[in-house]
Amino acid sequence: MDHLRRIGALRRKVTRAGLSGLVVTHLPDLRYLSGFTGSSAALAVTSRAARLFTDGRYTAQAAEEVNAAKVDIVSGPPAVSAVQWLAAQPGAAMAGFDPAWTTVADLARWKDALPSSLRRSFLAALPASLVEQLRQVKDEDELAIMAEAALLGCKLFEHMLGFIRPGLMEIEVAAELEYQARLLGAEAMSFETIVASGVRSALPHGRATSTRLPRKGFLTLDFGVILKGYCSDMTRTVHLGKPGNAERNAYNSVLEAQQAGVAAVSPGVTCAEVDEAARSILRKDGLAEAFSHSTGHGVGLEIHEQPRVAAGQITRLSPGMVITIEPGIYLPGKFGIRIEDMVAVTATGGQVLTPAPKALIEL
Amino acid sequence: MDHLRRIGALRRKVTRAGLSGLVVTHLPDLRYLSGFTGSSAALAVTSRAARLFTDGRYTAQAAEEVNAAKVDIVSGPPAVSAVQWLAAQPGAAMAGFDPAWTTVADLARWKDALPSSLRRSFLAALPASLVEQLRQVKDEDELAIMAEAALLGCKLFEHMLGFIRPGLMEIEVAAELEYQARLLGAEAMSFETIVASGVRSALPHGRATSTRLPRKGFLTLDFGVILKGYCSDMTRTVHLGKPGNAERNAYNSVLEAQQAGVAAVSPGVTCAEVDEAARSILRKDGLAEAFSHSTGHGVGLEIHEQPRVAAGQITRLSPGMVITIEPGIYLPGKFGIRIEDMVAVTATGGQVLTPAPKALIEL
Repeated sequence: MDHLRRIGALRRKVTRAGLSGLVVTHLPDLRYLSGFTGSSAALAVTSRAARLFTDGRYTAQAAEEVNAAKVDIVSGPPAVSAVQWLAAQPGAAMAGFDPAWTTVADLARWKDALPSSLRRSFLAALPASLVEQLRQVKDEDELAIMAEAALLGCKLFEHMLGFIRPGLMEIEVAAELEYQARLLGAEAMSFETIVASGVRSALPHGRATSTRLPRKGFLTLDFGVILKGYCSDMTRTVHLGKPGNAERNAYNSVLEAQQAGVAAVSPGVTCAEVDEAARSILRKDGLAEAFSHSTGHGVGLEIHEQPRVAAGQITRLSPGMVITIEPGIYLPGKFGIRIEDMVAVTATGGQVLTPAPKALIEL
Repeated sequence: MDHLRRIGALRRKVTRAGLSGLVVTHLPDLRYLSGFTGSSAALAVTSRAARLFTDGRYTAQAAEEVNAAKVDIVSGPPAVSAVQWLAAQPGAAMAGFDPAWTTVADLARWKDALPSSLRRSFLAALPASLVEQLRQVKDEDELAIMAEAALLGCKLFEHMLGFIRPGLMEIEVAAELEYQARLLGAEAMSFETIVASGVRSALPHGRATSTRLPRKGFLTLDFGVILKGYCSDMTRTVHLGKPGNAERNAYNSVLEAQQAGVAAVSPGVTCAEVDEAARSILRKDGLAEAFSHSTGHGVGLEIHEQPRVAAGQITRLSPGMVITIEPGIYLPGKFGIRIEDMVAVTATGGQVLTPAPKALIEL
């Protein structure tokens, strides 16, 4: 991972924003910028330097993981030291912070640690996260890991096709999937595994329960693994037994919408346009109301990142962004269907990272 | 769960604090007070009323889960509606919020939604969380669930004793433990399962890796399950092969310290005294430096809650508190040992909720 390049890009953003410094405390941001994976640290960045503050538990780990910034081991809260250090730099005037990841209690503590002359004016809440903007475009190292994580997901899905049978409890399905994920090297799951069968497939976020898989009905699996810190995310809906015409038609509508969403992915296209490409298919099939969520989201070190792929989102796709395309329909009391791929934006279009079969599978 | 009683107790605290209202947004607090388990809501509490605000995704779920407060379905951020509702109550003067769970961005949004005359003075950061104070003393319903969760942990440990053998990878051990947890009804693990073998046992938080269990050496398992929202937490260290004298003596020191910590648990005793009871044993055995963390922590809907069982903590134990007692020693390059129980404070002393064997087990 080229942390020097990332911190360099952030430094330029800090300068362009008219700030003398920036304090970063959100752990995925710290990992992205410096490689540090511990649970307590803060990074101070100026136009000239970057310094990571952490505590004595992480002396060895920080020395091993962090090469792109000097490391200071401190005894109090790391962010307090980071803010004090920024205030003591030559030319210190105003340091930015991310108000979405700073609590009111944190900010009060930081201000209390500043000289009284700086308390009112030194710390500035930024309107948008500078690090989040960088993180939404993945570099080659990140894309390679994410492709690997996504393929691990596909391998798990393939394994599950041989495991799933009527009568199993949903939690047994989740347990098997997570067990195999561990054996295949996943550090953890990206989120609570969704296993929703029969009428429960109509719940967009049906946690696995002790409900037994029916002889006949849909089964939705939505899951992801974490590999080297990066999340995968995919959904497939299969049918136990022979589907009726209504089920088959509904499935094909969702599949067509999902494929239209994937086909719309291209640099320069807005997220709203990708959303509309999928949504318009379901609207034409009379399923607009049943598609009750947005089409997708960015994914990376966190399972939900920028950009949001939803109506009204004017962010334009750029090469290196990785988004999900996951239209779904939910018919309460009947059934639900969702199909989700991870798609990397390339120079000319989109590359699906989760090439597991999508034609309706009957088990 | 007696949510009416809990909200009643909170109302009295709000009145005693001289506030006209309180806004609660931390999800475990919301679950504790109202039973709501969704991912987006806010609770507004006054001396007379309580109202939960959530969005349209949770209409059915809130109606089912929430009985002790009226529910309002809103389209914007629930906390904004909660703050506006508090400001519109008769006698509204000042509403408290928890600065540890409120971001700077949230607070700015709340203020912007208030009439300009109230923007400066209506919202007050509280010096200590009123809900956290309630949550640290568990009621009978909570104690029953936590005892069940703790026993599930013991059952898992017993299963693992029959599974562990030299040559297995640490991640295979973690995978088996988590798989069995799922089958036994755990909703999830309380935290990332720690499996640290051989020299890796000297890492206090050694995540499971692909390291293979040695023929001879310690193995530390630190894990917990979530049952009905409540966390269990336990640690056992076993020895593969025959331990040498150094290993055996060190183990017995930790065991003696752990037992002294458990024996010190009693209502009226301070957390610092419990910490010292365990720490003094290791000090006497020349292991003070090797015991590099605090003795324990409260546990409940979150894995780490109040009170902290550490030096300097003057909180006195009360019946109904549930804490961990988990002294450990870490000798880098050699080995580490930690033993942890969950202990409920009773009217007369402490009750261990995790009665799994603690004498040194050789596998």
